[in-house]
Amino acid sequence: MTGTKKSSNNKNSQSYKIFSSKKHVDVVKGQVKVKILDALCKKNMSFNEIVELTGKAKPTVSQHLSELVTNGLIVSIKDPNDKRRKIFSINAEFLGELSSDNEAKFDIEEYFSNISNSSDPFDFYRLILRAVRTEFWNDGINIDPILHKAGIRVGKVFYNELQGEDLESFLGNIEKFWEEKHLGRVEVKTLDPIVICVYDCFECKDLPEIGEPACSFDSGLLDAIFSKYLDKDVTTIETTCFAMGDECCTFVIN
Amino acid sequence: MTGTKKSSNNKNSQSYKIFSSKKHVDVVKGQVKVKILDALCKKNMSFNEIVELTGKAKPTVSQHLSELVTNGLIVSIKDPNDKRRKIFSINAEFLGELSSDNEAKFDIEEYFSNISNSSDPFDFYRLILRAVRTEFWNDGINIDPILHKAGIRVGKVFYNELQGEDLESFLGNIEKFWEEKHLGRVEVKTLDPIVICVYDCFECKDLPEIGEPACSFDSGLLDAIFSKYLDKDVTTIETTCFAMGDECCTFVIN
Repeated sequence: MTGTKKSSNNKNSQSYKIFSSKKHVDVVKGQVKVKILDALCKKNMSFNEIVELTGKAKPTVSQHLSELVTNGLIVSIKDPNDKRRKIFSINAEFLGELSSDNEAKFDIEEYFSNISNSSDPFDFYRLILRAVRTEFWNDGINIDPILHKAGIRVGKVFYNELQGEDLESFLGNIEKFWEEKHLGRVEVKTLDPIVICVYDCFECKDLPEIGEPACSFDSGLLDAIFSKYLDKDVTTIETTCFAMGDECCTFVIN
Repeated sequence: MTGTKKSSNNKNSQSYKIFSSKKHVDVVKGQVKVKILDALCKKNMSFNEIVELTGKAKPTVSQHLSELVTNGLIVSIKDPNDKRRKIFSINAEFLGELSSDNEAKFDIEEYFSNISNSSDPFDFYRLILRAVRTEFWNDGINIDPILHKAGIRVGKVFYNELQGEDLESFLGNIEKFWEEKHLGRVEVKTLDPIVICVYDCFECKDLPEIGEPACSFDSGLLDAIFSKYLDKDVTTIETTCFAMGDECCTFVIN
């Protein structure tokens, strides 16, 4: 049922990254701009820090920053500690990536020729999700950030059904919910940190092995419900996944 | 459950179109290039026809065509009727569109605040599909061509289950398949042309009203199974849809 992702030999492969500000969606290609945006997604930075990060001359960096400010993707504010200096911060969200190199693929024709029919109607829905996912992969498009956002929205809707008096009953409700909705079988591995495994995961089971975790929607679901339960922002990290050749998905709630 | 797509007042809104050649994915922004690619997706054209289409000076058009050939998105061949002339044809596939104007949206926050819980696990899978769809819409990304391609792949896999001795039994098998997989209730309206309606369609039911048909995956499914049955390429056109405010989806098989 699985295929292996082909490795790429093209050292010149480039990618387009898609960012969305409040006003518009922008496609960013240049390596320097992408490097700056990636870094600012993690933390605010001063001009000198950005110069150091990119290894480019100051006028070059200044020009890139000016264009990113004009496009509305970043904003600059005065450093409260030194009003002559500027601090740059991200004003956009990373949405996804288009790889300009179409070589790095599993073989989608072979993958679909091995799909076996099933009488379980849930398998058909899971196949729809996989078909959409593999089609994006085949076209070199990474939609993980958007799947993750969609998972967060759905998680927020269903949190009310999962609330429990204590951690044990909350985790029990999650196990029950996943089972009732045919999303997979949840097993809690540890409580500190919270680590859960999902067997027969709706999102990744039978996906091609691409060597990376694939459950971005599921991670978003877990982010939302654990953030609500713990009343603070948590980030779910997937450490094992069917798409990495593992038997179950392991999610660590940080 | 539905929201209304906000209209855009921004006359300067532009869009990025994503094309994929056999070698790579490319993002095309310029209006002239997009116009040329859109036209070549429909038919091959001569240089003079492209000049007329764009209304631009010959050297300008020549420069655009040269860049598109270099990028591998189009190819030129000698006109068999006049070897001094070139015929241009598309060498890429239209994958989707990013609207640079984020104003043209329904209100996704309002939409999700009105999602009602349901004990039917199929409703949860349908919600996953809707959540992904609305998240792309909210970010100004049109993924219809990719959903359509994914539908075609799945349709090809399942055609064997649907084959019938004659048109009547084939259509009967489709009705049964849609019902068994919880995809909706199919009613055949006419046979020449073949027109079918789908009530409670898995793809669009409860989507926001955006004023356009939304069932690209479903259209792809139908394209694939009717193309196989009729042994010729057919194109399914969706004329009514829940996302247009209609009670059912109407598909005309051309």
